[in-house]
Amino acid sequence: MASALRHSAKMRMAARVPAARALSTTARLRAAEKPYFPNEPAGPSLKTAIPGPKNKAAAAELDEVFDVRSLNMLTDYNQSVGNYIADLDGNKLLDVYAQIASIPVGYNNPHLKETTQSQEMTNALINRPALGNFPSADWANILKTGVLRAAPKGLNQVFTAMAGSDANETAYKAAFMYYRQLQRGGPDVEFTEEELVSTMNNQGPGSPQLSILSFKSAFHGRLFGSLSTTRSKAIHKLDIPAFDWPQATFPQLKYPLEEHVQENAQEEQRCLQEVERLIKEFHNPVAAVMVEPIQSEGGDNHASPAFFRGLREITKRTNVLFIVDEVQTGVGATGKFWAHDHWNLESPPDMVTFSKKAQTAGYYFGNPALRPNKPYRQFNTWMGDPARALIFRGIIEEVERLGLVENTRITGEYLYSGIERLAEKYPEHFQNLRGKGQGTFLAWDTPKRDEIVAKAKSVGINIGGSGAQAIRLRPMLVFQKHHADILLERLEQLIKAL
Amino acid sequence: MASALRHSAKMRMAARVPAARALSTTARLRAAEKPYFPNEPAGPSLKTAIPGPKNKAAAAELDEVFDVRSLNMLTDYNQSVGNYIADLDGNKLLDVYAQIASIPVGYNNPHLKETTQSQEMTNALINRPALGNFPSADWANILKTGVLRAAPKGLNQVFTAMAGSDANETAYKAAFMYYRQLQRGGPDVEFTEEELVSTMNNQGPGSPQLSILSFKSAFHGRLFGSLSTTRSKAIHKLDIPAFDWPQATFPQLKYPLEEHVQENAQEEQRCLQEVERLIKEFHNPVAAVMVEPIQSEGGDNHASPAFFRGLREITKRTNVLFIVDEVQTGVGATGKFWAHDHWNLESPPDMVTFSKKAQTAGYYFGNPALRPNKPYRQFNTWMGDPARALIFRGIIEEVERLGLVENTRITGEYLYSGIERLAEKYPEHFQNLRGKGQGTFLAWDTPKRDEIVAKAKSVGINIGGSGAQAIRLRPMLVFQKHHADILLERLEQLIKAL
Repeated sequence: MASALRHSAKMRMAARVPAARALSTTARLRAAEKPYFPNEPAGPSLKTAIPGPKNKAAAAELDEVFDVRSLNMLTDYNQSVGNYIADLDGNKLLDVYAQIASIPVGYNNPHLKETTQSQEMTNALINRPALGNFPSADWANILKTGVLRAAPKGLNQVFTAMAGSDANETAYKAAFMYYRQLQRGGPDVEFTEEELVSTMNNQGPGSPQLSILSFKSAFHGRLFGSLSTTRSKAIHKLDIPAFDWPQATFPQLKYPLEEHVQENAQEEQRCLQEVERLIKEFHNPVAAVMVEPIQSEGGDNHASPAFFRGLREITKRTNVLFIVDEVQTGVGATGKFWAHDHWNLESPPDMVTFSKKAQTAGYYFGNPALRPNKPYRQFNTWMGDPARALIFRGIIEEVERLGLVENTRITGEYLYSGIERLAEKYPEHFQNLRGKGQGTFLAWDTPKRDEIVAKAKSVGINIGGSGAQAIRLRPMLVFQKHHADILLERLEQLIKAL
Repeated sequence: MASALRHSAKMRMAARVPAARALSTTARLRAAEKPYFPNEPAGPSLKTAIPGPKNKAAAAELDEVFDVRSLNMLTDYNQSVGNYIADLDGNKLLDVYAQIASIPVGYNNPHLKETTQSQEMTNALINRPALGNFPSADWANILKTGVLRAAPKGLNQVFTAMAGSDANETAYKAAFMYYRQLQRGGPDVEFTEEELVSTMNNQGPGSPQLSILSFKSAFHGRLFGSLSTTRSKAIHKLDIPAFDWPQATFPQLKYPLEEHVQENAQEEQRCLQEVERLIKEFHNPVAAVMVEPIQSEGGDNHASPAFFRGLREITKRTNVLFIVDEVQTGVGATGKFWAHDHWNLESPPDMVTFSKKAQTAGYYFGNPALRPNKPYRQFNTWMGDPARALIFRGIIEEVERLGLVENTRITGEYLYSGIERLAEKYPEHFQNLRGKGQGTFLAWDTPKRDEIVAKAKSVGINIGGSGAQAIRLRPMLVFQKHHADILLERLEQLIKAL
């Protein structure tokens, strides 16, 4: 956290953040030992089988008007607190799934509650602006003290969006416009008559058959452009028309990493060569490479910093843009504010997209040429939601005040060691443990994955899977050592009972 | 309004809406004569040239981090009230553009303010749920007393989204899945191995080359699928890959309508024949026809109820879905709650999309088969925003309490007559006046459109254009006769000064 926000110290000063927030590292660590939520339960508590009678009745009612086949648990958010999620039957579970990796600072966080009580928030909610045309007078300030205060190093601009899918798609649009601008010879070259006419017919050269290169098992969203780069599961893609865009192999590393150093390095080298070959040879020219720092929905697939430095190097050399999708990895979960902070890149990604834990969405960029050459090329009515931007600001303040990225790094190490011990004891249930040094962003494979996820609630934990056989941990940033102890104990209980 | 909400009377009872809200029509009309906002200015007031010095300085500051080339006016929302929008220099303008047709019940509406003060709102803001997995226990109630209370007749289901673009795209996805399900022979037919494999490569048959038919000059959004159906302006589409989807001609009616009855009927017939021919012959099979009740961004192009009944009839007969994009026309602006209520359809549209004045988004549907046959096919992390759904509920309550759809119908007739008088006096500046009987959703063509829009602020009004030469009026639902008088007076002042 400190590292991720260090470069914004000047901005923080300018925004007159109370000095109390600038705690020393030592003070923060001391703070991290104390529970952040004094009113959290001491542990999970189960009153009924799950779902209990009240939850069943409420789900049947909801089913009348809303698709509940993906329902996991109807939630009583009034009774949820910190890391604990409650249902209508009075059950309280330790939540290490956190609304599909999206709740950052705990249920009913008091500081966020304060944020909602402000005049700014009321204003944003009831006078919703068309941000591109009529931004509020304090929009620059909301961005500078919020969204941009957490901007990745080297990226000082933002295009705001609504969720991960449209954040990614608007980044793709920026990439395509930039690519064609380079081809045309600069921002001042006018569109040709042929371009103007053909684009109205969805044909080239105005609507060119360019592409975004993504990776096998990637997940980048579910709208038409983003879905064309999503390659994780057929069920997301079936029956939906898609663009003819290329996919490269994402490294399939062997674990434990230290026993497969050379093999893994070769695998990554092979994948990088495939990326370069596709950029040079794919029939629909590649405008950008899109990648997740850790493939999340696709199964928690990791690659080394060297692999990502290689991607950055190839994209530089071949003149295509490098976009990093930090929708799931961003905002602290890997023990750094942005997962790509782990890579020590020589030059930053061209764009970084965010959503989920930010509770709002968009893409960051630094190169001014990524602002399209004319207005209204990248535009829509709302262009995000200032109410959600205020929540992100509250989250950043809370992350900073409590040192939550450091907490996550430290708790993550502790939790990783605990799972390592479980893996020694129950090797068949904890295979390919991954995420060492990546905060609490941990995962492992198990042949009984679906059974474990289904039964977890019966031992008081709410947990999620990814890919075909992985358990993924996605606790909040307020997950502490005493929560890790409970999680480890309940996981063992669950494994023993299989 | 009354008509649009009549069918939900039972629902309203169930939700225990205070009886005070069920005002008689007479009482509502009497109420509509009194100003809704007693604290509104008596008229526009100008303190400086626009933009004034404070606005210029603030725009320069915002430009550092945010694209301001589409900036219309930095707004002081604290000073904006009802139909009046304020800037930083103390200027107050009568706003008949309303955040690109999206603010429904006035700036700083007191009832919406109350809505933001509730525990429900705090909850929705700080405990943002993944609605498909972990909806709050009161989500069914929020939907039934809000979003669904205003559902078009015959459509009792909703898929919630974030904005117009993704509302339209998720509707397209539902259409494609439904089309393939019919082809396969029903919801229980399993996907083939070939489909499962090919879709991972973005190829058919798993990712089929199906299409959505839209109309020339249509606007349906700017993400990759929605942009492929947008045909209004090249600037929105240039450099962005698009699907090879068909476009039909939207009727180009001649005005005044009563002088071109037969010609216009022939034009509509010609367009309907083209639609049918494209459905039958286009090389990428058509899964759905998408249409706006009034093409808005594309220039305020109207067609008759008979044309839309024809579309419904053709789509029924050819077995493709009929989707109505009510993003800009919905929620009262045309003098009915939904613009398609004007058409007297025998059977409702298959899907109706909404956003803008609803302040949240999604699509309504009625046929249960439009829920995809398996979970997670239509899904994303947030699936909308309950905070914005609560605002929509507050809007519906306010529309109902004050009879705002009726107000808009009555004020619209009054305003239309006034513009007709101006058109007689200044025929070159008020050509092809359209929107008779369509509430305040009025427009006309003028050769000096850009100049008029640019100079409008100097006479105290904020106004927008559409298409190449139209002025479009998009006042809020709280726009009353005394506002219409001011608008007419200022428009004349503006024309005289040209």
